[in-house]
Amino acid sequence: VRRIAPYFAELGLPCPVVPTRVGESFEAQLEAALDSGASAFSFTFGLVPQAAIEALRRRGMVVLGTATTVDEALALEASGVDAVVAQGSEAGGHRGTFLRDARTSQIGTMALVPQVVDAVKLPVVASGGIMDGRGIVAARALGAVAVQMGTAFLTCDEAGTPAAYRAAVLAAREDETRVTRAYSGRAARGLVNRFMREVDTGRDDDPILPYPLQNALTRPLRAAAAAQGRSEFLSAWAGQGVRLARSRSAADLMIALAREIEETETRIAR
Amino acid sequence: VRRIAPYFAELGLPCPVVPTRVGESFEAQLEAALDSGASAFSFTFGLVPQAAIEALRRRGMVVLGTATTVDEALALEASGVDAVVAQGSEAGGHRGTFLRDARTSQIGTMALVPQVVDAVKLPVVASGGIMDGRGIVAARALGAVAVQMGTAFLTCDEAGTPAAYRAAVLAAREDETRVTRAYSGRAARGLVNRFMREVDTGRDDDPILPYPLQNALTRPLRAAAAAQGRSEFLSAWAGQGVRLARSRSAADLMIALAREIEETETRIAR
Repeated sequence: VRRIAPYFAELGLPCPVVPTRVGESFEAQLEAALDSGASAFSFTFGLVPQAAIEALRRRGMVVLGTATTVDEALALEASGVDAVVAQGSEAGGHRGTFLRDARTSQIGTMALVPQVVDAVKLPVVASGGIMDGRGIVAARALGAVAVQMGTAFLTCDEAGTPAAYRAAVLAAREDETRVTRAYSGRAARGLVNRFMREVDTGRDDDPILPYPLQNALTRPLRAAAAAQGRSEFLSAWAGQGVRLARSRSAADLMIALAREIEETETRIAR
Repeated sequence: VRRIAPYFAELGLPCPVVPTRVGESFEAQLEAALDSGASAFSFTFGLVPQAAIEALRRRGMVVLGTATTVDEALALEASGVDAVVAQGSEAGGHRGTFLRDARTSQIGTMALVPQVVDAVKLPVVASGGIMDGRGIVAARALGAVAVQMGTAFLTCDEAGTPAAYRAAVLAAREDETRVTRAYSGRAARGLVNRFMREVDTGRDDDPILPYPLQNALTRPLRAAAAAQGRSEFLSAWAGQGVRLARSRSAADLMIALAREIEETETRIAR
């Protein structure tokens, strides 16, 4: 808290409060998901109980779990999910890693996808660094049946991304992201900024609480930073494909992706 | 030296000697390359002088430089090379990084290749995590005109890979490699083993000399380890695609790759 307090002061916020308990009940979250009417339920950070998977499936939802290594994909398959999302090291946002440490589990998409495809019988969804039609065709070549794109949609008109975050993504280079625990207490890839550099020094004495405590601790800071347009305090999650981010409507992006897939297929066909 | 000496003793070697100068003359190396009769000259760790590029080209060689970021690709293009090798973070062996630090410059192949392709006019060769026909087709989809494969050929009969190294690669998993400076003083990806864990602790007081001094210092250790089949002291460079390594002749691997390329193209064609 002592390390974080000056940032709160800088944004005109009251002193930060160390959360002792964070009210995230799995049951309440699952109930909301079951009532959502969604057609797919995708989760990360581990496994969910078999009873939950069965309840979701009874509502007609496809259930997807996130793996960052082959062992995680095998654990997900054994848990009864319908498909595995293979999350490569390029991916923005939180790492789904749940078996080994986050640093060990940063496998690039090009290497991860075929190794997961060979290991599991389930359909594999590729994620990490996929930003356009070239990436989609590449992921299919590696054996994925679908892709998951995050950063590519962050800068779409409909995304609700704060203006400072959006501008930072559109200006960023591929070597300006890093995996950090500074914002949430869990490893996540985002644009390097002042808060990340100053709080996550990589030394053992980093004053970073475990997730979800650090997440709750920094929430007021992130909210105020978004409202005040201060990108140096935003958790600006983004993947390594940032130079390919485009500012447009989601519909226009989808049309562009379809056209790029066709162009790519034509280019590589012999 | 004090940190390294016990390993020398364990392998029955005389005490290690700190090299003060390492005799690697660029001119002598270039002379050997010019006389080699090779059809391509590929380099890493930076740029080579324009006069050298011109001399190589006069001998009919295609000149390729290695980039781990877009800025490095642009610098190589400006230096006059014929093509750029985009080295993704999955790649085994030494990182070609020469503009920023090695940690910042670990961009996954899926993200790096299209961003380099968009930035330069030169042909781009993809490397990092490409182990079979699926990877080759994926790299072409991303915009590469060719691929460079290292780990895939390490376990071929003709490779000259020491037996202990070969066995370690064939047994390794995708999450058992790491980028380390322990063996050579320069960042390189290899299989995690005892020497790497004990010497490269990630702390600031790591007793690692700069390249090529550390490389010369550890050379007798690596040679003795290879001779004695002690894989814990080998610099077992390997990429993150290790689960896909196959033990066969190079000719059989080439035939398999050609077949897999066709299978992949057929699978993704609609």
